[in-house]
Amino acid sequence: MTDRLYLYDTTLRDGQQTQGVQFSTAEKQAIATALDALGVDYIEGGWPGANPTDSAFFDAAPDTRATITAFGMTKRAGLSAENDDVLAAVLNAGTRAVCLVGKTHDFHVATALGIGLAENTDNIARSVAHVVAQGREALFDAEHFFDGYRANPDYALEAVKAAYAAGARWIVLCDTNGGTMPAEVGRITAEVIAAGIPGDRIGIHTHNDTENAVACTLAAVDAGARQVQGTLNGLGERCGNANLTALIPILLLKEPYAGTLTTGISRDALRGLTRISRMLDEILNRVPMKQAAFVGASAFAHKAGLHASAIAKDPTTYEHIDPASVGNARIIPMSNQAGQSNLRERLERAGLTVDPKDPTLGVILERIKAREAEGYAYDTAQASFELLAREALGQLPTFFEVKRYRVTVERRKNKYNRMVSLSEAVVVVKVDGEKKLSVSESMDETGSDRGPVNALSKALAKDLGRYQAVIDDMRLVDFKVRITQGGTEAVTRVIIDSEDGEGRRWSTVGVSANIVDASFEALLDAIRWKLVRDGASA
Amino acid sequence: MTDRLYLYDTTLRDGQQTQGVQFSTAEKQAIATALDALGVDYIEGGWPGANPTDSAFFDAAPDTRATITAFGMTKRAGLSAENDDVLAAVLNAGTRAVCLVGKTHDFHVATALGIGLAENTDNIARSVAHVVAQGREALFDAEHFFDGYRANPDYALEAVKAAYAAGARWIVLCDTNGGTMPAEVGRITAEVIAAGIPGDRIGIHTHNDTENAVACTLAAVDAGARQVQGTLNGLGERCGNANLTALIPILLLKEPYAGTLTTGISRDALRGLTRISRMLDEILNRVPMKQAAFVGASAFAHKAGLHASAIAKDPTTYEHIDPASVGNARIIPMSNQAGQSNLRERLERAGLTVDPKDPTLGVILERIKAREAEGYAYDTAQASFELLAREALGQLPTFFEVKRYRVTVERRKNKYNRMVSLSEAVVVVKVDGEKKLSVSESMDETGSDRGPVNALSKALAKDLGRYQAVIDDMRLVDFKVRITQGGTEAVTRVIIDSEDGEGRRWSTVGVSANIVDASFEALLDAIRWKLVRDGASA
Repeated sequence: MTDRLYLYDTTLRDGQQTQGVQFSTAEKQAIATALDALGVDYIEGGWPGANPTDSAFFDAAPDTRATITAFGMTKRAGLSAENDDVLAAVLNAGTRAVCLVGKTHDFHVATALGIGLAENTDNIARSVAHVVAQGREALFDAEHFFDGYRANPDYALEAVKAAYAAGARWIVLCDTNGGTMPAEVGRITAEVIAAGIPGDRIGIHTHNDTENAVACTLAAVDAGARQVQGTLNGLGERCGNANLTALIPILLLKEPYAGTLTTGISRDALRGLTRISRMLDEILNRVPMKQAAFVGASAFAHKAGLHASAIAKDPTTYEHIDPASVGNARIIPMSNQAGQSNLRERLERAGLTVDPKDPTLGVILERIKAREAEGYAYDTAQASFELLAREALGQLPTFFEVKRYRVTVERRKNKYNRMVSLSEAVVVVKVDGEKKLSVSESMDETGSDRGPVNALSKALAKDLGRYQAVIDDMRLVDFKVRITQGGTEAVTRVIIDSEDGEGRRWSTVGVSANIVDASFEALLDAIRWKLVRDGASA
Repeated sequence: MTDRLYLYDTTLRDGQQTQGVQFSTAEKQAIATALDALGVDYIEGGWPGANPTDSAFFDAAPDTRATITAFGMTKRAGLSAENDDVLAAVLNAGTRAVCLVGKTHDFHVATALGIGLAENTDNIARSVAHVVAQGREALFDAEHFFDGYRANPDYALEAVKAAYAAGARWIVLCDTNGGTMPAEVGRITAEVIAAGIPGDRIGIHTHNDTENAVACTLAAVDAGARQVQGTLNGLGERCGNANLTALIPILLLKEPYAGTLTTGISRDALRGLTRISRMLDEILNRVPMKQAAFVGASAFAHKAGLHASAIAKDPTTYEHIDPASVGNARIIPMSNQAGQSNLRERLERAGLTVDPKDPTLGVILERIKAREAEGYAYDTAQASFELLAREALGQLPTFFEVKRYRVTVERRKNKYNRMVSLSEAVVVVKVDGEKKLSVSESMDETGSDRGPVNALSKALAKDLGRYQAVIDDMRLVDFKVRITQGGTEAVTRVIIDSEDGEGRRWSTVGVSANIVDASFEALLDAIRWKLVRDGASA
């Protein structure tokens, strides 16, 4: 026998409390559709009446299998539930389920509401009863429940029991300030169940202020709670809510949860998790967190040499789950931490088979170490790594030779007396014995100056003779700069991401005290890699 | 009675396993010094002999109160401990303490090492004994201990007991793959203690693959473990190690830990935690994680209207700790009122007293918002913030005018047929009605090219007429570049730190798609701030 565990997503409501996050209605619709495809049970859409996009979302909520839920608060003192216009706006959204937050901590009843405890209990009971009377599923968010229970367990229990007695389907215990430790969440949840509210009527809502939101949620589930609230990528007020992107794979893949609980999410849908997490970052224009559990780009990156050699023998040696089960992938980065087996595996993936006894392996590792000491980084710049290896193996043709370049950055007043900048680059290369001079400037189609590296990139790729056709579909898609040593002796590392017409994407690195030189080196590697991969001959 | 809990930092070793992280020796020294000032007990510096920067760090380790520890692995089969050159390199680092990792999971002994269980136990015992015989404190990292204990508890216990019997000061239970749930970490740690290894000889080392590293660490401490391993900002292999930046404030501020355990970290040092966390991001040129527990910029940001109004009555309503206790600060992002009082406080610190009713306060806030949307950041660039405010307040003299500049970066063969680069900058300014042309090149005293920004900086500061005497003692001490938008529309933010003869240090910011322009803007602000502060008149 397995218990059913319900997943309640609040990305669209509590997630929107993240500093800097403001969803449009269309974005809310896209996220709700993705959550429904994933298989969560409830989607909390926002607080109808509290802000225009929330109201607009409920007016045009997508058709979902999941229960779209409106959020609001219990009625205010001095008004009947029927006459509270804030509550009415919530009910008017017409959702199947309504979640109302109310006070359960005596200190907050006095400080924030300024009313008596009995009056607060009455507000909770009447509000929940009103929702139920309208034929809706009622949820009660017990705000500050754990703090309240510590301070006055009798009152905290009285408050949640009032909601339960009034017909709430779920009593959601909230660690609103995020300060409760997991062991205490577990203990208090067990005590609430012992006090008469069954576990399959209890939900858990935690925040990540001590980096324990996932653990607090699991502690409540261990104690018997059967609804889990959270957000995608752990969005939310302050440090965020419990991260569903971590909780979902735990509940589906890890013991004791996988064997004792069922959810509405299939193993198949779980393989879409990484994609959904990245989609949300895309919507928010955030750089995805590389180290995120399960879905981060580094979550299955094995940098240590000892780890990589064991992984090659059996992936379970250093992986607690199969990366594919959450739609993620293994990475063996190359760096001076790495050993020869890392190196061979990485070469293999670049199509270079090298005998384990080949002394060139040692030469390549030494070169990588020496260059990393100068500031190079090869764990992301796979293409530059490959060129370095090919060179050591004698498998890198000299396609062309750069004789010299010159870049000029000028800033002066234009004819309208406004300061404007323009860069110009001249590159001289020798291809098949022929000298070729190319010149480009930094202006883009819109007339904006894109700077010296842009001009240089265009001039370098302008005329490479018989190689030109191969590189014509290349474009620079990202450009990252890092100062690897502080102070005036600063050394600049530039990483460039390129893409071609077939959708291939590759990263190259350059290092110099001179940022233009560092960029030029990375640009040059980008072109050379493309020529190698497309089989151009010297 | 309180128990002593020991903190073991592995930022410099396991933290360096983070994808994309490669510390220089100088950076390792700076981090070790900061960790020592914080008050951790052990600083694991790296694996001597495994890579050049680790070896260089041990050769020039800073003088610390904390025990600098060298990391390595137990001796290999078929060699005596005395004759294993990998182990010898670790001991040759000459550290007071040595931590050796060894296998405790039967599957790994067979799969990764390919030796018998008894032979592995013997390798552990002899390696630890060898470290102890050399008069060093020995630590044993029991790799994959929790997975091993699940699979074969007898052998896992045999392995750690061998290390304990051989004299290891600490037996560190490692959840190497990061897949064990907190409850199980607690149960197994308790069983190890019951099996005869005292809690004050047990350490815990966890990884964040399920977002439970902090909780797993706490579960082990709850069970009796008395050494905690982790990294600053949770750096580390894959999803990172247990985050000391979260664990330290939990252990010092939260119950039951604060009342029952002592550490080497004072309440006073704890107030430096946010600064240390940001310093590490600065070194790595990473954008600090806003939602990080305790130290993130959003950790005490109250966006929900209901929260913000309650906070105004009593901060404990929505804060589980005082932000100042970890050196962080409260933010009320949506409240214009709070924005203005923040602003006035900041202006006050710059010596600018502004009436609370002055409408210029609103103008300044609007300009900051608009510029931050373009990519500016005024959190660190206090000097540029001050210039912006002075300009709005009509308190910024026009000292001189930049008419134009031109920078040339050239790379070509020198007379020895080697490629060399050189930059040259021409700056034209108008001071007191007089036009002044200055030219400088990028070569430093050693004959190395320092790049275009260096040349520009020198030319700009070369001849500013009657202001020259004021700026002659200025020097550029740091230069940071960040790309604030990805892709081809990349915008560059440059932050420049300057210093003068009196030891004053100030930061300025420039933003442009053109990195040279962004740098020039920051350089210009640096000079203008110096002129304002030294009371130069227009």
